[in-house]
Amino acid sequence: MLYSKLFGKSVKKAPSDATLNSHKLLYQAGFIRESTAGRYFILPLGQLVQLKIMDIIRKEMNQSGAQEMLSPVLHPLSLWEETSRTKTTGFELMKIKDRRDFWFALGGTAEEMFVDVVRKFRPSYKDLPFNIYQFSLKFRDELRARGGLLRVREFIMKDAYSFDVDEESFRKEYGKMWDAYIKCFTIMGLDTIVVESDNGYIGGEYCHEFVVESEIGETTFLTDGKSYNAHVDVAKFKREEINPNDEIKTFAIISQPEWVQTMDDNLKHYKLPKSRFLKNVVYKKRVNNEIIIAVIRGDLDVNKIKLEHTVDAVGQLEDASEIDLKKLGTKKGYVHSWGHKKARYIGDLSLTTVKNFIGGQKEKTTDSINVNYGRDFNCEKLADIALAKEGYISESGNKLIGKRGIEVGNIFQLGYHYSKRMKNAVYVDRTGKERYFYMGSYGIGIGRSLAAIVEKFHDDKGIIWPESVAPYKFHLVGLDLEDEEVSKKVYKVYYVLKEKGQEVLFDDREDVTAGEKFADADLIGIPHRLVVSKRSGDKIEHKKRPEKSSELISIDQLVSSFL
Amino acid sequence: MLYSKLFGKSVKKAPSDATLNSHKLLYQAGFIRESTAGRYFILPLGQLVQLKIMDIIRKEMNQSGAQEMLSPVLHPLSLWEETSRTKTTGFELMKIKDRRDFWFALGGTAEEMFVDVVRKFRPSYKDLPFNIYQFSLKFRDELRARGGLLRVREFIMKDAYSFDVDEESFRKEYGKMWDAYIKCFTIMGLDTIVVESDNGYIGGEYCHEFVVESEIGETTFLTDGKSYNAHVDVAKFKREEINPNDEIKTFAIISQPEWVQTMDDNLKHYKLPKSRFLKNVVYKKRVNNEIIIAVIRGDLDVNKIKLEHTVDAVGQLEDASEIDLKKLGTKKGYVHSWGHKKARYIGDLSLTTVKNFIGGQKEKTTDSINVNYGRDFNCEKLADIALAKEGYISESGNKLIGKRGIEVGNIFQLGYHYSKRMKNAVYVDRTGKERYFYMGSYGIGIGRSLAAIVEKFHDDKGIIWPESVAPYKFHLVGLDLEDEEVSKKVYKVYYVLKEKGQEVLFDDREDVTAGEKFADADLIGIPHRLVVSKRSGDKIEHKKRPEKSSELISIDQLVSSFL
Repeated sequence: MLYSKLFGKSVKKAPSDATLNSHKLLYQAGFIRESTAGRYFILPLGQLVQLKIMDIIRKEMNQSGAQEMLSPVLHPLSLWEETSRTKTTGFELMKIKDRRDFWFALGGTAEEMFVDVVRKFRPSYKDLPFNIYQFSLKFRDELRARGGLLRVREFIMKDAYSFDVDEESFRKEYGKMWDAYIKCFTIMGLDTIVVESDNGYIGGEYCHEFVVESEIGETTFLTDGKSYNAHVDVAKFKREEINPNDEIKTFAIISQPEWVQTMDDNLKHYKLPKSRFLKNVVYKKRVNNEIIIAVIRGDLDVNKIKLEHTVDAVGQLEDASEIDLKKLGTKKGYVHSWGHKKARYIGDLSLTTVKNFIGGQKEKTTDSINVNYGRDFNCEKLADIALAKEGYISESGNKLIGKRGIEVGNIFQLGYHYSKRMKNAVYVDRTGKERYFYMGSYGIGIGRSLAAIVEKFHDDKGIIWPESVAPYKFHLVGLDLEDEEVSKKVYKVYYVLKEKGQEVLFDDREDVTAGEKFADADLIGIPHRLVVSKRSGDKIEHKKRPEKSSELISIDQLVSSFL
Repeated sequence: MLYSKLFGKSVKKAPSDATLNSHKLLYQAGFIRESTAGRYFILPLGQLVQLKIMDIIRKEMNQSGAQEMLSPVLHPLSLWEETSRTKTTGFELMKIKDRRDFWFALGGTAEEMFVDVVRKFRPSYKDLPFNIYQFSLKFRDELRARGGLLRVREFIMKDAYSFDVDEESFRKEYGKMWDAYIKCFTIMGLDTIVVESDNGYIGGEYCHEFVVESEIGETTFLTDGKSYNAHVDVAKFKREEINPNDEIKTFAIISQPEWVQTMDDNLKHYKLPKSRFLKNVVYKKRVNNEIIIAVIRGDLDVNKIKLEHTVDAVGQLEDASEIDLKKLGTKKGYVHSWGHKKARYIGDLSLTTVKNFIGGQKEKTTDSINVNYGRDFNCEKLADIALAKEGYISESGNKLIGKRGIEVGNIFQLGYHYSKRMKNAVYVDRTGKERYFYMGSYGIGIGRSLAAIVEKFHDDKGIIWPESVAPYKFHLVGLDLEDEEVSKKVYKVYYVLKEKGQEVLFDDREDVTAGEKFADADLIGIPHRLVVSKRSGDKIEHKKRPEKSSELISIDQLVSSFL
């Protein structure tokens, strides 16, 4: 490719609102341009990288036995209603109707579509297992897009869906996808950490994110530094006994000065740590206005995501308002840990780690003390609804450390989540009986992976592409082109490389200084820079992008060493 | 690939509404499934073909110097408004707004988007010419979808856009694309006829369709059997003099029996051919209700598309209603060829081929005779607004023959159509002056090409894929698999082929008869069928799909002859 004719040349300045390195560099070097916020043109240089990433993934998916296909991106909205995902996805889902007033969702993920096409075949147990995937456009009407390709509203995703007869068979597929993902990302040059995470509106019981550690990542996770890595949304931790040696005392209502209102007031007044107090957090379920009071040890915070799973209300809880509390007959700071009619009580596991809690039935000048769970009050359910934090102890006994990263892929156990909600999502077993299929789904964001690679591989001069995903292998720079001899030589190198089927970007511009050409080569980040100039004589100056020094080699050496 | 695990196995019956061979065969053989009308799942077998077609096109496009990129499919609606295409596309354009009330068009073609990304760079004459293309989803809210992949509402298109400094440079690019298209289709096994056609809502002055001749095609075109091929929408023809030797007579208004009302009545009454009469056809322009009267020789019909181009109202003319005629002060059958105020008169070139027309000022019991264009009446413009038909004479003097075909690609001269309508659609010339770029656009429908291949290559047993686009090269059929020796041998053949990097579909099913396996192999249409059975002994039975007889070959012969 002649750089003079490349569409999407480098520019000096990045947009003023670009803060991320991947955004700045991909813009300046001519890989991407914004259309509207969160929707990008992938320019020719960017598309070359995108195609290579897709090829890497395609190869590993095929290797694992998965089969590529393609589904429409306009999904009949009725399918999303069949699984109630129209409710759980919220505003992110875009909808459109055609001239016949038929409603579609613009696909965000395609679980329903793949179930729909599979059930058309009414498969037998002999047809299973299979894993079908696609590279397809996805739409998310994100509230806020981030600059560059990290969080966008339209992107290509490799999404796969597996269909198995049972959990045992599914677990093998899940393992295969896990391994394939690690391999894909490794080939791209990315080290990924596999993080337990929340399945959100996808559904199912467990899932894992593949995360590239990065300060600018939006995924925050906790790690025990060994084998445990979990997104804060789902991270588990050990709740230690706070006062195991205390005697259980008699429940009492005591008077309390009127100035004691907040938790801080309590700490001052009782001179006891936060963990000795009961804390109540009130939520409302959007669909039916149900009130849920989460009761938790005072030093912990409620994890709304965990609570939503506990009460089967994914994406549906919001903080209760003052009006909601008024309806309950109370107000902020005076919610009781028991006794409010019309409210459901859900307790955290930490409630059993304290003897003689303070609080729980606070009024203006009284409060309860020596409150013991199980004796003085009960919740509908005790569950893990607490937010894990850095410094807490993991279940294996290590201190949890907080990290950030970029989620580039994820794998979901779906189990029977979709097959039980959709009609005829069954296979026929050996005995002729219909059984639900056991499902999983698996995604990789192509643009996100591309941006993550740039975040990991760059310096202050530009991008440093790993060879596996570089837009070209060679960046040939011609200098002193007004000199006919030199010009002949550099074109000869270009054609030799082309003839050998090599990927070369050839900077053939005649009105650009050597300095500018070198700066562009560094910015674009192609692995091997070749310079032909008066100075290089009969040889070619070869430099690897990340290295400082170059070497003079002959064209034969070039062919024998690097082709 | 093991056929037992393939997703999308063959079925006995096609849907009852499937009438086209491509629809029936692609459905039965497991290449496609309908999601909603006009939106298809491309199943694994279909996707393999689709990817091969895309690879063929990608290679030829790159070879021609075009550069692949990717644009969002949600286009800011403001861009379509900038060129007024929101008006000319009509209902086919789907629109959607996001949560911020920002409106988008779902891309049908992407001229505006590509101009938009190019103008962001403010290119110099040194950057031109370039041709940028993509494989991207396209949406058309068609009133009627056809069964199968021939006319759908969502499909992958290769669309390319060229930017040149002037027409001369553009013509070279147009020629390159022409050649590249011929080459692509030839590799796919398709003979295409290049047909002059209408540019419709795309704009520009001329364009060509690449058409695969087929009885079931929706494109109707006329050919002189030599070098002239033109879509009926644009086909030109020679208008011969009807009565060159007649004397020009004096214009007169004569009385006429009241029963003479229709053209047939006239023919009876005057005993003269249709061509001697004047005919008026009345249209209304949607945007401003302007009335246009097309005046034409009685034996010809008006071509609305040509007329729309003549009056610069593409996609905007509709037949005038009775109410429209009433407003004009007339009614059906009594429209005058001149004199209606508030109407624009456009005449066909045929008006000058007749001396002494009859008609033009018909009232209940009178009509005008000896009407001569130029002497007795004039139109605003004389233009080619007549519909060409089979049997007419081409401009080169040959009889036109009507044919039908499937349009698989098209190339459009756009000229300044977009650059003049969009802001800053300019490059900077040598002198620093801004100039409009000269554009072209070029499309190939991937699914349409796939279906056209099936329409051309099939027999009563199934599809017969050309090797260049076949989903697999070999269809290995294992029979007598309960026999351990045979089973071992067939798996060995499978693994040898796999090891050599060959594409093999291996029918490993154990509960299916030989007859069924052969029927499936014929239906799916893979070029080389290999059978291993008790009967084949140490050899492999090899048969090419279209041939009747098979030959016994050894595995070594297989490797040496076909790999």
